[in-house]
Amino acid sequence: MTAIEANQVTIEQLINKGLDGVEKAMFDVTNSEVKVLRDASHHILSAGGKRIRPRLLLLAYLALGGKDLDYIAKPAAAVELMHTASVVHDDINDHGIMRRGRPSVNSIWGRTFALLTGDFLFTAVYELMSSYKDLNIDLANSATALVEGETLQASAVKENNFTREIYMRIIALKTAALFKAAGTIGAKLANATEEQTDALANFGFNIGLAFQIVDDILDIVADEQQLGKTAGIDIEQGRGIGVALQQSNGNGSTTTKDPMESIKRKMLEGDTIEKGQMQAEQLVALAIEGLNVIPDSEAKSELINLANLVVKRDH
Amino acid sequence: MTAIEANQVTIEQLINKGLDGVEKAMFDVTNSEVKVLRDASHHILSAGGKRIRPRLLLLAYLALGGKDLDYIAKPAAAVELMHTASVVHDDINDHGIMRRGRPSVNSIWGRTFALLTGDFLFTAVYELMSSYKDLNIDLANSATALVEGETLQASAVKENNFTREIYMRIIALKTAALFKAAGTIGAKLANATEEQTDALANFGFNIGLAFQIVDDILDIVADEQQLGKTAGIDIEQGRGIGVALQQSNGNGSTTTKDPMESIKRKMLEGDTIEKGQMQAEQLVALAIEGLNVIPDSEAKSELINLANLVVKRDH
Repeated sequence: MTAIEANQVTIEQLINKGLDGVEKAMFDVTNSEVKVLRDASHHILSAGGKRIRPRLLLLAYLALGGKDLDYIAKPAAAVELMHTASVVHDDINDHGIMRRGRPSVNSIWGRTFALLTGDFLFTAVYELMSSYKDLNIDLANSATALVEGETLQASAVKENNFTREIYMRIIALKTAALFKAAGTIGAKLANATEEQTDALANFGFNIGLAFQIVDDILDIVADEQQLGKTAGIDIEQGRGIGVALQQSNGNGSTTTKDPMESIKRKMLEGDTIEKGQMQAEQLVALAIEGLNVIPDSEAKSELINLANLVVKRDH
Repeated sequence: MTAIEANQVTIEQLINKGLDGVEKAMFDVTNSEVKVLRDASHHILSAGGKRIRPRLLLLAYLALGGKDLDYIAKPAAAVELMHTASVVHDDINDHGIMRRGRPSVNSIWGRTFALLTGDFLFTAVYELMSSYKDLNIDLANSATALVEGETLQASAVKENNFTREIYMRIIALKTAALFKAAGTIGAKLANATEEQTDALANFGFNIGLAFQIVDDILDIVADEQQLGKTAGIDIEQGRGIGVALQQSNGNGSTTTKDPMESIKRKMLEGDTIEKGQMQAEQLVALAIEGLNVIPDSEAKSELINLANLVVKRDH
């Protein structure tokens, strides 16, 4: 048991060291000479967040035999910054006031600077990846998918055309594609075989879908339990069950709350939450099963833990 | 004379063929399955624009012996789409109603979709460049500079702290850096020497500065001449002399016009316009002089024409 415990400490230390490198890379690349970009970027980054995407990339790399934590810091940081950029822009479109327990960039620096901060984070992704030549296509594809998913979501709400099929398409694009890229890039950085890379890509994609479904369920449940509190505001702003609020046209001054409320009511009336939770669990089981093609290791166990955590978390 | 005329036809044909390829690359990469992204991107792209950045890249490539027009279509398209993305986001921040003689993306599709369209164009840049491995750092650096320049501009207006030095820093970042990248990438794609690449980088940088100075002068003059017409609106929205309007905080519903008006008045009172025009002409002369290190050719003549056009244009 002592040997195993010693090993467990080692993998945790490796993960922590890897993630420390990711934090450093994120803060370094956003250390702009332009004060507002530096301040706003560091504000959102220092608020934390789950760092699930860089953790996935790191674990994929370690599980496939990768050893050089410095080598993966920048791509892992790029994946997290891509997500962060979309979060900053989301908060503009959804009039989000709070983010990660802090006032949003939008609410502190205003819309103009929030828009530019999101743009800056996009360009930081590009900077970070510029020396990782063969991996740019993977992250570029997921970046395009992310924006397409966010757009489909806004369109679906605006047109009040929100079916289960459209929901699945939205979350595949806006969330699962970036998880897939994290798995793919981690595997490729470890010089994995094509079969192994595909396994990690599918693993990422499936836990990405599960992650978003659970996120949306947690929003709905929290909204019911804490009506009027912050989570409730989040829902009304359209982050519940993957729907952005219908935005007013052009001047962006008013917000129609009806579309989201009707969708939410529909979700609560049926068995959608139970079905969603079940689907998320099936996706995670599928993701874990797909790891059969890679050898057992502590890092692989951590990947499995990560997948299980996606459906078992309560926040 | 016939031989020369025949040659001139050839270079023009080459340029037109090259730019046709750029148009195709831009429309192809933005041909998203998500209708609003496709429509909004094609709306702004089909409105035209000077295409000065891809033309610069193309001419740099040809002047340094490049022959493969297909090879440079994507990077040239990326440079133009980077500019287009920033234009779409600018129109959100400046409440721009018209762009290139058409309603802005913002005014047709609303703020949410305009923000997402700009993001989509950013990711399209990344897609286009993903197979041009050694050039990503050049475009990434210029993308970051562009966003930093736009941010400095918005900060300077907000803080009412707009000196000549700050103006020059802003236009170096927001405009000249991308022109520099266009020259650099064109040269590198032609496998130019380091000396030649530096010459094209400096050429791009200097005509970029001149271009922005002239742009700002044209805005001021047009504003004086056509007060209340579209150009006047552009000025009030903060595109004159490189200044964005002071944005209202958070809700973005109101617009303070004072900062821009006072800056404009200051420009018109002094000899700023004459000085600016003179500086632009000096920058163009410097740019052309720097081309001494590359052999004479029709493409080089076209580069010189391009530089001269930057200061001699009236729109």
